[in-house]
Amino acid sequence: MSHRTIRVSLPGDATPTSDRSYDIVIGAGAMDSIGAALRSAGARRAVVIADSAIVEPHAARVAAVLGAASIDAAVLAVPAGEASKSVAEAGRLWGELARLAVDRGTHIVAVGGGVVGDLAGFVAATFVRGLPVWQVPTTLVAQVDSAIGGKTGINLTAGKNLVGAFWQPRGVFADIDALATLPRREFTSGLAEVVKYGMILDAEFFHWLEAHAARILTRDATALVHVVERSAALKAHVVERDEHERTGLRAVLNYGHTFGHAFETAAGYGTLLHGEAVAIGMAAAAQLAESLGRIGPDIVSRQQQLLTALELPATVAAYGQLAKPATADELLAIMARDKKTLGGRLRFVLPSRIGHVELVDGVDPALVRRVLGM
Amino acid sequence: MSHRTIRVSLPGDATPTSDRSYDIVIGAGAMDSIGAALRSAGARRAVVIADSAIVEPHAARVAAVLGAASIDAAVLAVPAGEASKSVAEAGRLWGELARLAVDRGTHIVAVGGGVVGDLAGFVAATFVRGLPVWQVPTTLVAQVDSAIGGKTGINLTAGKNLVGAFWQPRGVFADIDALATLPRREFTSGLAEVVKYGMILDAEFFHWLEAHAARILTRDATALVHVVERSAALKAHVVERDEHERTGLRAVLNYGHTFGHAFETAAGYGTLLHGEAVAIGMAAAAQLAESLGRIGPDIVSRQQQLLTALELPATVAAYGQLAKPATADELLAIMARDKKTLGGRLRFVLPSRIGHVELVDGVDPALVRRVLGM
Repeated sequence: MSHRTIRVSLPGDATPTSDRSYDIVIGAGAMDSIGAALRSAGARRAVVIADSAIVEPHAARVAAVLGAASIDAAVLAVPAGEASKSVAEAGRLWGELARLAVDRGTHIVAVGGGVVGDLAGFVAATFVRGLPVWQVPTTLVAQVDSAIGGKTGINLTAGKNLVGAFWQPRGVFADIDALATLPRREFTSGLAEVVKYGMILDAEFFHWLEAHAARILTRDATALVHVVERSAALKAHVVERDEHERTGLRAVLNYGHTFGHAFETAAGYGTLLHGEAVAIGMAAAAQLAESLGRIGPDIVSRQQQLLTALELPATVAAYGQLAKPATADELLAIMARDKKTLGGRLRFVLPSRIGHVELVDGVDPALVRRVLGM
Repeated sequence: MSHRTIRVSLPGDATPTSDRSYDIVIGAGAMDSIGAALRSAGARRAVVIADSAIVEPHAARVAAVLGAASIDAAVLAVPAGEASKSVAEAGRLWGELARLAVDRGTHIVAVGGGVVGDLAGFVAATFVRGLPVWQVPTTLVAQVDSAIGGKTGINLTAGKNLVGAFWQPRGVFADIDALATLPRREFTSGLAEVVKYGMILDAEFFHWLEAHAARILTRDATALVHVVERSAALKAHVVERDEHERTGLRAVLNYGHTFGHAFETAAGYGTLLHGEAVAIGMAAAAQLAESLGRIGPDIVSRQQQLLTALELPATVAAYGQLAKPATADELLAIMARDKKTLGGRLRFVLPSRIGHVELVDGVDPALVRRVLGM
């Protein structure tokens, strides 16, 4: 089957010849291309790091494909769930790689959702000061977001992704087939990031999502390829222009995330799925933008309708229904600790219309409290 | 007092405007320049990570200098010794930075020897995916080697520096005054890396060391400035040309280190100082080069004489006197696990004359055994 390919163009990090550009391959059966890709990259060995819940069928299939390409592949399973993004689990994987006598000719292949991609990416970034890593995202949120762009990391008790590295993959294989068997809640959760791309960068894509919501929910393969391809292209566009979050451009991707991370952290990881927290976070951000006079109620409402059509929580009130709500003080304290914060000032990405957002600094905490309805 | 400055020229990692070049400032009182440097770099806050043994006087002085430049500086002490380069200690420091609500406007300042520089550098490289770090090396080995070039890392039980990152400092302050109070063994240990620079890159510097060995041992300030300046310039030259160990050029810096790491690992960290292990490693590497017909006995002997003149162990036999010797099998097994190894083949950096080395792959283990005299 033919696949779509999105190129992420990145300059060399030391010399013009050390180009770090890579391809995102999208389509049904895309993971079967990984053997040839690693061969071309000169891989001698591979270690597949996979979510324990999907070793069968996905990690086993990847290992078989690598084996067929004459690349020796060991598989390390990571317990499913956000708790695996820990110092302890990173330490365990580092020890396993040492036990396997992994050297710089060994490539890491991450198979799973965002947890495995972030964790395996961080372990790859740091073992012997950096191993090549390939991402095989098997959830929608990983295919449209976390597997692209090189952000890796683990959590501390104090907050999510507080430890990590920018470490670009050598390639991403977004296999649409893997989405067919995702639990419903996990699938729809991934659509929050998709709506986000429409809101922040692409009004036309937002319209397309409005027109095709029902078809997307049936997981029609053609619709899913378009969802993943357009999302990946938008993310690649941003990452190419601000890989290390220096210019502020990459910050647009955090639309809904300052609120969302606070909801997630306060609820305890795993209560709310990341996409659910982001959906509620976008609802909160849109309301905040409205209260600042940056958008009218029509935009708030259209976003709410699209989230609802995609079976996502669509209002701040939904937060109280899905998780034991924290107080506004607790949420504000978490937001002030967010790693994109500078000098403790509240900073939000807020829409000015569909398809465009701006970074707004020094927002009055009283307004944030009002949006939270607390 | 006037200082010498060596520029390390490195290209931007993403865009031409993100230049990563930095200065190594060398001289008596050099650490007093750090306040102005952090001000110019726009630092809002600083966290000084220091060897607990030298919080007084060095870390306290750095914190005072930063305070005088209106930069708020907290000090975190790290227990002295190689055991601090651990996952546990990195985890503790990450937690402390979270507790201090460190954000991306906070700069890390590492004050101490190689252990603190490597550990604090790694913590800086990974906290919130990267904080700016400044190195204030207070030992000779750190001033001439480990604080320059961006290699950071921690140890695993399985081996030294198995986890880490390439993360360049924003600047290095090599204060010659700090060398005056170093214990004798720690001072001479640092001279091993200095001899190494002469052997691998600079015959003229090797001659100068031969001529000035006695003066260096008296820690004459002018001699020490030359030792540090020339060493830093040679290291900068290599790092500029092969920052990430891709072309093989940076590998020349590992002269004496394949053997040396094996001696260190087998002895248990802390039994042999790093420089002592490197000195014995260079003796072994020179003998191996001679047995391969790459150099004559005169070169082996001149290296041995210079090491001896600098009060360093100068022969493979010295290893058995300083530490409980491991078997050749144990040492070979450790060398085969070295992270610069590819495919388990033994690889050594060997001299072809004074001032020049070559990377030699696939050395016969029987020859290595003979050099080890086992």
